[in-house]
Amino acid sequence: MALIVHKYGGTSMGSTERIRNVAKRVAKWARAGHQMVVVPSAMSGETNRLLALAKDLAPPRPDTAYNRELDMLAATGEQASSALLAIALQAEGLEAVSYAGWQVPIKTNSAYTKARIESIDDQKVRADLAAGRVVIVTGFQGVDDAGNITTLGRGGSDTSAVAVAAAMKADECLIYTDVDGVYTTDPRIVPEARRLHTVSFEEMLEMASMGSKVLQIRSVEFAGKYKVPMRVLSSFTPWDIDLGEEARSGTLITFEEDEQMEQAVVSGIAFNRDEAKVSVLGVPDKPGIAYQILGAVADANIEVDVIIQNVSKDGKTDFSFTVHRNDYARTIDLLKDKVVPALGAQEVAGDAKICKVSIVGIGMRSHVGIASKMFRALSEEGINIQMISTSEIKTSVVIDEKYMELAVRALHRAFDLDQA
Amino acid sequence: MALIVHKYGGTSMGSTERIRNVAKRVAKWARAGHQMVVVPSAMSGETNRLLALAKDLAPPRPDTAYNRELDMLAATGEQASSALLAIALQAEGLEAVSYAGWQVPIKTNSAYTKARIESIDDQKVRADLAAGRVVIVTGFQGVDDAGNITTLGRGGSDTSAVAVAAAMKADECLIYTDVDGVYTTDPRIVPEARRLHTVSFEEMLEMASMGSKVLQIRSVEFAGKYKVPMRVLSSFTPWDIDLGEEARSGTLITFEEDEQMEQAVVSGIAFNRDEAKVSVLGVPDKPGIAYQILGAVADANIEVDVIIQNVSKDGKTDFSFTVHRNDYARTIDLLKDKVVPALGAQEVAGDAKICKVSIVGIGMRSHVGIASKMFRALSEEGINIQMISTSEIKTSVVIDEKYMELAVRALHRAFDLDQA
Repeated sequence: MALIVHKYGGTSMGSTERIRNVAKRVAKWARAGHQMVVVPSAMSGETNRLLALAKDLAPPRPDTAYNRELDMLAATGEQASSALLAIALQAEGLEAVSYAGWQVPIKTNSAYTKARIESIDDQKVRADLAAGRVVIVTGFQGVDDAGNITTLGRGGSDTSAVAVAAAMKADECLIYTDVDGVYTTDPRIVPEARRLHTVSFEEMLEMASMGSKVLQIRSVEFAGKYKVPMRVLSSFTPWDIDLGEEARSGTLITFEEDEQMEQAVVSGIAFNRDEAKVSVLGVPDKPGIAYQILGAVADANIEVDVIIQNVSKDGKTDFSFTVHRNDYARTIDLLKDKVVPALGAQEVAGDAKICKVSIVGIGMRSHVGIASKMFRALSEEGINIQMISTSEIKTSVVIDEKYMELAVRALHRAFDLDQA
Repeated sequence: MALIVHKYGGTSMGSTERIRNVAKRVAKWARAGHQMVVVPSAMSGETNRLLALAKDLAPPRPDTAYNRELDMLAATGEQASSALLAIALQAEGLEAVSYAGWQVPIKTNSAYTKARIESIDDQKVRADLAAGRVVIVTGFQGVDDAGNITTLGRGGSDTSAVAVAAAMKADECLIYTDVDGVYTTDPRIVPEARRLHTVSFEEMLEMASMGSKVLQIRSVEFAGKYKVPMRVLSSFTPWDIDLGEEARSGTLITFEEDEQMEQAVVSGIAFNRDEAKVSVLGVPDKPGIAYQILGAVADANIEVDVIIQNVSKDGKTDFSFTVHRNDYARTIDLLKDKVVPALGAQEVAGDAKICKVSIVGIGMRSHVGIASKMFRALSEEGINIQMISTSEIKTSVVIDEKYMELAVRALHRAFDLDQA
């Protein structure tokens, strides 16, 4: 008997028919003897419907009073779907009870619309589990110290589920979603892409942050911090598939390197074509230039991804970074108007038609020559590398966007990712 | 400057356009210097939509676990409309904050789906008012001692508003609704029916319980208990009508008899055609017969309205009462099968084609001859009276239902109700 947390997304909760299927699946687990906590999202479309009503009344504003009410509003979606799931479970003959975030309570800070979980009281939930009940905890929301309802931001139900699993010291947190796991890369680009049976927490972080939008990245950070075993699996399998088979499906995100398992050097190929590169060229090389450039960018609320500064030559250096493509024009203007004159730099250059391709793998830590193998594979395809950036478990290159698919396929093949 | 509570029904909150109008109306009151607390219902149709989803998952059951989840579900409707109203008020340039029942808190007992308010903490609301905020409190809901969400039953928002007004010692509680006040009788039957400028609490109770479905009767009881001045007025007037005019519109439900005002003897004519009469004839007159008859009826969960027992003759008496028409056949069967044999009564008779017509007026207390004036007016129209029942401020007769409109019109005229 294990303590298991299930998380179901809005699509899985999208109609009473689907809620009934979720209930049947949860009932199967409960009848197998597991203690079950379920974290549902709002019914699909509901959060958007509610926020559209708010937007119709007043255009979004950054102020606290407005955001407090947005959270009051949006939190109703999960409260309703949780109550409905409890009713569906009761119809299955199980005892079930639902709790809103404030009832658990799930304590957060007061950053409305993007709150962070600070603590979860497990007493109430544990008492219900001990009494043989399935416990449903609303995703996406919590309560601050003053008793105001807060929400965790889009996709926050993943984080809720992991946080609840951490607080309950659950044996596993199963995230049911519309994909059946984490892949070596996007199967739409590489048909040979394989589902990973396991992926390390660090790899998952790199994959998630680079556009493999399977999980909300904060939920992975949370899982990593509290070492919650987390599984991504499909909610589209029939609810009555064999429980053992279901429990082994999807991708398990692990936190301990399994000694018995030969770790693949590279686990996956991530990519992102939403970026643009910007360079400030001929910057006099003196202390503080990185701050002067990036400080101005940050002040304008522009997020920066890759940052590169090469060694200087003749007392001058070139400073490059990437931003979201939507921020490209604004970044160039900002640099030309303010930063270049202040720094005495020569010029600003940039390109919005680029993409970033990365190889990710925890095995890279202990293997040499991985980066050079990557560069060779790209050069054999005639792909020019514009920027390189590396971390312990990731090597990224910026290339012309027109080569993206070619590069992903070449790297997938070069690192034998299409072989089980 | 006064402390005013406004209550808006689901129709008034039915769309963002209507919510915007509510906000403009509330803003007008706030700008005139009043401290404002607003209690909105859910957007019209929302509660039904939510409960239909629940019903689709599981047929309604009387058990506590199910009803607890129904309340979790239904309470979201008011939480959402309250947050939307806060946003609309902010868009009007006011500071506004919304609270769910549990945040105030509005404490209730644990009778899910029909909870009773036990206490309201006014501290939070008072602090916000003092800080110049409009405070929105969700109608229809509260929280029990264990922290479960409860709802007050259909129409419960009226009760919420009055209870909040009582807790805040508000100067007046304005119930905005789709009628423009309380009438001397139903204008669909008597075109000359007049709106009452004031009606006493006791009269309103009699009117409400007899089918003038303007207000939830519990809200009137609550208002009476705590002496909350309560006004029923139309939400269909333009939001920008003169505040003084609006403040005098509708019908004020009062608790102190105004000495300066000549109290009308009869304030209104109420009627109800949903009843049926039942008689147990020839009952041996001995102690306990009323209990033996009505106890059996009550045990079968049948509600009784008028009850009449006349003096006995030859040691036998006749015992009559009225029940809801839907319960008629069941009541007759029950009496024939169980009560008549046990009592040794002669027979059971009844008639479902009856109606009850009442004159209501606090002035009846101190005026003689009111009832006889009523009976004369009916006899002049050739209407036979089948049963009579009286209270301090009400005289009701049961007559053939085909005479209902005729009786109402005759009484309306006889008591000069069509004259201002």
